[in-house]
Amino acid sequence: MMRTFGLGLFALALVSPLYSFAQEVGRPQYSIDMSYPYDYSSIPVYSQAHEAIYKHIDDNLPAHVSNLQRWLRQPSISAQDVGIDAMAQMLVDDFRAMGFQEAELVPTDGHPGVWGYLDSGAAKTLMVYMMYDVQPVNPEDWQSPPFAAELVDHATGKVIMARGATNQKGPQRAFLNALESILAVEGKLPVNLMITAEGEEELGSPHYPQIVDKYEDRLLTADGVIFPMNMQSPAGDLNLFLGVKGIAYWELEARGGSWGGPVTSEIHGSYKAALDSPVWRLIQALASLTSPDGNTALVPGFYDGIRGPTEEEQSLIAASLLNNDSTSALQEAFAIERWIDDAGPQQRVMELTYSPTLNIDGIYAGYTGEGVKTILPHTATAKMDSRLPVGIDPEEHMDKIRAYLDANGYSDIVMRRLSSYPAAQTSIQTPLVQAALGVSKKYAGTPAVNPRIAGSAPFYQFTQRLKLPMMPWGMGFGNGAHSPNEIMLIEPAKDSGAAGLADIEKAYVDFVYALSGE
Amino acid sequence: MMRTFGLGLFALALVSPLYSFAQEVGRPQYSIDMSYPYDYSSIPVYSQAHEAIYKHIDDNLPAHVSNLQRWLRQPSISAQDVGIDAMAQMLVDDFRAMGFQEAELVPTDGHPGVWGYLDSGAAKTLMVYMMYDVQPVNPEDWQSPPFAAELVDHATGKVIMARGATNQKGPQRAFLNALESILAVEGKLPVNLMITAEGEEELGSPHYPQIVDKYEDRLLTADGVIFPMNMQSPAGDLNLFLGVKGIAYWELEARGGSWGGPVTSEIHGSYKAALDSPVWRLIQALASLTSPDGNTALVPGFYDGIRGPTEEEQSLIAASLLNNDSTSALQEAFAIERWIDDAGPQQRVMELTYSPTLNIDGIYAGYTGEGVKTILPHTATAKMDSRLPVGIDPEEHMDKIRAYLDANGYSDIVMRRLSSYPAAQTSIQTPLVQAALGVSKKYAGTPAVNPRIAGSAPFYQFTQRLKLPMMPWGMGFGNGAHSPNEIMLIEPAKDSGAAGLADIEKAYVDFVYALSGE
Repeated sequence: MMRTFGLGLFALALVSPLYSFAQEVGRPQYSIDMSYPYDYSSIPVYSQAHEAIYKHIDDNLPAHVSNLQRWLRQPSISAQDVGIDAMAQMLVDDFRAMGFQEAELVPTDGHPGVWGYLDSGAAKTLMVYMMYDVQPVNPEDWQSPPFAAELVDHATGKVIMARGATNQKGPQRAFLNALESILAVEGKLPVNLMITAEGEEELGSPHYPQIVDKYEDRLLTADGVIFPMNMQSPAGDLNLFLGVKGIAYWELEARGGSWGGPVTSEIHGSYKAALDSPVWRLIQALASLTSPDGNTALVPGFYDGIRGPTEEEQSLIAASLLNNDSTSALQEAFAIERWIDDAGPQQRVMELTYSPTLNIDGIYAGYTGEGVKTILPHTATAKMDSRLPVGIDPEEHMDKIRAYLDANGYSDIVMRRLSSYPAAQTSIQTPLVQAALGVSKKYAGTPAVNPRIAGSAPFYQFTQRLKLPMMPWGMGFGNGAHSPNEIMLIEPAKDSGAAGLADIEKAYVDFVYALSGE
Repeated sequence: MMRTFGLGLFALALVSPLYSFAQEVGRPQYSIDMSYPYDYSSIPVYSQAHEAIYKHIDDNLPAHVSNLQRWLRQPSISAQDVGIDAMAQMLVDDFRAMGFQEAELVPTDGHPGVWGYLDSGAAKTLMVYMMYDVQPVNPEDWQSPPFAAELVDHATGKVIMARGATNQKGPQRAFLNALESILAVEGKLPVNLMITAEGEEELGSPHYPQIVDKYEDRLLTADGVIFPMNMQSPAGDLNLFLGVKGIAYWELEARGGSWGGPVTSEIHGSYKAALDSPVWRLIQALASLTSPDGNTALVPGFYDGIRGPTEEEQSLIAASLLNNDSTSALQEAFAIERWIDDAGPQQRVMELTYSPTLNIDGIYAGYTGEGVKTILPHTATAKMDSRLPVGIDPEEHMDKIRAYLDANGYSDIVMRRLSSYPAAQTSIQTPLVQAALGVSKKYAGTPAVNPRIAGSAPFYQFTQRLKLPMMPWGMGFGNGAHSPNEIMLIEPAKDSGAAGLADIEKAYVDFVYALSGE
């Protein structure tokens, strides 16, 4: 029956979810039909072999490694504006050297973007999303200097260690290496190429829409978007996802004022006897938002609008659950003894995929050091976020929370909205994903494909604004994004199943050919 | 009628307080009879003049200032163990130089105490409590180096600027200067003297009881305890108090465990969909402790045992309220727009004096920096304190909070008890206080006497353990305890009404004579 998906007709069809209410209040719970797991055998393994190109990659591997090092040795820390302009220019120069007809900086209200276009006279056009910025570093925490990009020995094999090695310069430059080898051997690519690169991904992509603005008419003509990424485990397992949740991120701040409390500064703690406390006010306001277990929001309309599991999503989740429990690794890593409501694997996955969350990322007020200090703080702040499934608009979501606080008498509590964007979803039936999966099977066996991860990324810009299928994809293994000692595996050890740089590039070669249909 | 207090019979008599319940739950509210304000005219101004001793002080003032500087130039930071032993030895040496029969270090499990005894063959014995330690410093924040103890010009006159200038080396050494002048002129003091000094006051006096242990039999024979202190405002107003609230200080920590949540470390915030949050758990547990306005505790028995206003206390509060509203300065300094329940001055004073508080001194969990970081923290901590009126035992108080958390299913939340001691109260009718008030009227006019401040100090050690009247007392002005640029006024400007060093010392001279009855 699942083969009817091949027609693409049911991919986004709404089904009537089977849902019950968690506890006395309304957190919807979805269950799925396990009878129709997605049939990965229906996807043929990509069978063509581009031997001349593969040989060019193998023969030029030292130069390809040097390309990664050249990118990685150029710092580009967006938060500190370190090396940003030089890095952006390096992309422009590389695009020009590859023969792009268009390669230019794109001014924004923040760090510049980069636009590249390579017309191959092909029928299909691939859009590539890139980020050229990286997270800050504390060099003293690194085994090898973060911008030295040295090759070092690691449990998984020979790796390149640098800030940006895997997030995201390494796989992105590997993708360009692959294209260079195609161009060197064949003279042209089998697809036209549009690249948009931004220098503010680590800042939440505040000005990426301005880059899209400038090229929107042309981007709308593309056939799909790829974000080059090392997606294998050290053992070689490939875990893919076709969607992300949206996010709303805000701060709530209680501060002394006309309702009570000290206004200008903290006061001696003994005055609590006659003075209201902004900390208690924040705590009582926060407590009013959830059920006593902190897991179900009491905000009216909080769970309205969720688009429940489609047949396609049900089939992917069923296949995934039959294959393995993706949450069991988490359970081990974080010594988790109990999931919410003692949920089993299916309920866990459904909550992660379909439940809007109400999370406190941080809270602070008053004295937070060691020992005893007695003050009545004049301000208290909570940092909060909601991960939003398909169907919930992030601004409307925050409006509901604001309205609920107001209705409960907390209109003095300030809500500062820091970030928001909606969910994004791509269908497994799109040619982009089918091409990637066929190549995936060649290099990594049958992948695990999650319809949507619990985390967020602003992929709505592709799926909603440009109506393009989009996925992060690539062979290879990396680790340490946002941490010291970030690495990308270049030459796997004998017992490591993940691809090395040569196979990563060969898979990218195969992918553009698979997408082209040639 | 208030003169019946002269008999001391009603001083600690319980009265039936007129109390109502705040809101729907039980915060008792006390009101008082304003008809019998304390009659300060009943206290005669101290009329003796010890001219020869006063002249000795005036003639030796430069040497007396040097004594303060000698103490202040010796750092004695208890938290960092800087200069502690040298400072303790300086006290021993000074006591010996003054002719004390006993002067010795007192080993404790922490910093050493100092014991001094000077037998004058007198009928009465004065106990003096001293602290020789000081708070840490950030020298770069100081206008004059914190251990230079320079004389500098200030709005109030010539001041000595140093860590410990007013808290508490300055007034303590001034007290010893006064005694040296008596000894120089008269050859002996009119009272016997017992001094206990500790080097851990700024750490919460954890080992002071060990000092008392060693001399308890002898301390029990004293007639009262004084803590030398600069208690005037720059204008010269003298604000005294005869008691302090007790305190219980603890931390509550929620941490992932068998109830749920990540156990070993923070986890990606998106997993909130399937995982409990220790931050929400702490917030819901905290919220369960109070009424929605955060001002009334719901813990059973929280308000039981309060010893309401005695007749003496009512008379002191009535006099104080008729004279001025001591909370109005606070209202201005902290821009307070509203007191709890829109309380007027009387209710404010009654809450500050008689209500046990439930205050959050600080709270922290997760990410507390700028901008967006999305984590589900594995731990959350609140730092809390209760200021406890006479009648509430701090350990029993914390037991009740613990039991309430347990009864509400929060037995996993850790309660770390950091500090506790009960309230202390001395009667205005005691000879110690009457002596101090008579001298106060000579130097500063009629003082304002608060029966008890809202803050805490471990004075129970004197009032409960040794059954001695105790009060902090002295002329003079100081500022900046626990802050940069701590000062003690030495030579007042023409328009400053506060006493300078010479008058501070003369008042201490008068006080010991007044207490002796000679």
